[in-house]
Amino acid sequence: MSVINQKEWLQMIEEYLSGIEYPAAPATLYRPISYTLSGGGKRLRPMLTLAACEACGGRPEQAINQAIAMEMFHNFTLIHDDVMDRSSKRRGRPTVFHRWGDVQAILSGDTLLTMAYQRLVTDCPAERLPQVLELFNRTSIEIYEGQQFDTYFEKRDNITIKQYMRTIRLKTGVLLAASCAMGAIMAGASKEVVDSLYEYGVNLGLAFQLRDDWLDVYGKANELGKDIGSDIVNRKKTWMFITAMEEDPTGIRESFELAKTRGALVSRVRRVYDRLLIPLRCNALIEKYHSRAIASIALADIPDNYKIWFTGLAATMALRHS
Amino acid sequence: MSVINQKEWLQMIEEYLSGIEYPAAPATLYRPISYTLSGGGKRLRPMLTLAACEACGGRPEQAINQAIAMEMFHNFTLIHDDVMDRSSKRRGRPTVFHRWGDVQAILSGDTLLTMAYQRLVTDCPAERLPQVLELFNRTSIEIYEGQQFDTYFEKRDNITIKQYMRTIRLKTGVLLAASCAMGAIMAGASKEVVDSLYEYGVNLGLAFQLRDDWLDVYGKANELGKDIGSDIVNRKKTWMFITAMEEDPTGIRESFELAKTRGALVSRVRRVYDRLLIPLRCNALIEKYHSRAIASIALADIPDNYKIWFTGLAATMALRHS
Repeated sequence: MSVINQKEWLQMIEEYLSGIEYPAAPATLYRPISYTLSGGGKRLRPMLTLAACEACGGRPEQAINQAIAMEMFHNFTLIHDDVMDRSSKRRGRPTVFHRWGDVQAILSGDTLLTMAYQRLVTDCPAERLPQVLELFNRTSIEIYEGQQFDTYFEKRDNITIKQYMRTIRLKTGVLLAASCAMGAIMAGASKEVVDSLYEYGVNLGLAFQLRDDWLDVYGKANELGKDIGSDIVNRKKTWMFITAMEEDPTGIRESFELAKTRGALVSRVRRVYDRLLIPLRCNALIEKYHSRAIASIALADIPDNYKIWFTGLAATMALRHS
Repeated sequence: MSVINQKEWLQMIEEYLSGIEYPAAPATLYRPISYTLSGGGKRLRPMLTLAACEACGGRPEQAINQAIAMEMFHNFTLIHDDVMDRSSKRRGRPTVFHRWGDVQAILSGDTLLTMAYQRLVTDCPAERLPQVLELFNRTSIEIYEGQQFDTYFEKRDNITIKQYMRTIRLKTGVLLAASCAMGAIMAGASKEVVDSLYEYGVNLGLAFQLRDDWLDVYGKANELGKDIGSDIVNRKKTWMFITAMEEDPTGIRESFELAKTRGALVSRVRRVYDRLLIPLRCNALIEKYHSRAIASIALADIPDNYKIWFTGLAATMALRHS
């Protein structure tokens, strides 16, 4: 049984990214790309690809280009999302949009997407290419659809839980799922194993996003590095907010009408949540998706030490405190 | 020798485009795409792909998906370009940006690009896929680079002819070239034929763009369907403008300083151009690229009737009056 060396995967990813040689001109096109790719982040997606590849009997080198493609795609979506959301900060630094403007963010984002496609093809055996592209293209479309639903939700209050779950599945779940499946495909795994890893990724994404929403209300500010309650202030349609709007719309509306400060608003909404046992129920829901993720891994035909690694990662992400 | 039926190609393209079934939700994501694809245009790029495929012994059906991918890619660039340039009209209709706003134009553009990649893979033999993707990815990057140079030019006056020619090669030439090469690749043509058709396309693009610039100053308004001289008014760095700025900077600067109306400005600049024999020299340059295009076709190993078709198209585009 091979020893799992997560550090080695991370190092391989960072070395690949820092070793990319960008054309000298037009420098303006490539600077925002190298800025974004060198901006850190957890490298979760490429790590899932390398882990899945190894778990299915491949060497991580076999899937490194496709792993980088997933990371590039993820970063491309962040660049375009930040233009669309007019976000000025990301990972503690100015966004591309904020630093270089709309035009540059659109154009450098487009370029980064094509760079992802270039990696997808690199060192990919011809017989696997159709499957790799089908997965990648389908996932891309789903993510755009998720972003579209999300945009739509911003303007309305009557969002259902079902709509919300579909959206986070599309916005967060499918990319983690595809990152896992990609590694399995590159290792030549069976359809069953590819599907199991995909299911793991989807459920991991759902648990992760729900935990993210929960932490925004019940996390500790100093551990998160951001203000508590910003989702509430922005009326973000999270599972908690939608549930509260369904079960106690008056309580929520009054909170917004009566609160005079940001702190008072967050406290009031939190009191409504608490009365409805929403934090407890939200955690039960996280646990549901978390356990689905680990069940999917448990049943997959991969060595035990990889099952342990994927299970550990799920615990870290679904049950994290920051 | 098979009979060339250009109408059949066009019909195949239009039928494919109008037959696309878009997902019912999110409708907001797909409406701008169907709006754009049904907006007409010459369908020049997909037609070149089908023509090249047939010229190389293939059936147009073999390359129809890849032809549509080229048209989708072209329309994706138009959608994003219009956001970046804040253009409100295109093909006589409001642009996606103007009608649906920035967010929608960015997101629907991204989606259309992925739809292009989906077509690229469809019915493409696995052994040809790497070559198809390599061509498409490289061309995309070149077009973004061209757009980047163009953006840069807008802000400066000291652009050289060399920089201008590189930019129109990237912005216009390589997509026509790739559309031709794509059809040849799908028909399984030799590298020599693929390269000849590529060369034809690049030179066709250069001649076309130079003619476009010329028509903006010397064309007839009623034939063009737009105002004459808008490039001059916008100080657009065309071959004519750059040449005049190099040879008679005072004449150009004075025109801008002294002209009191749009009409007067256009007349003054035109007089500078005429004095420097710029319209004549511009046409000689168009002729240079036009003849390179037809020479490239003449030497290619394809049947004579296709040589005649490609040659005729080059004449239509390089020497057109509107």
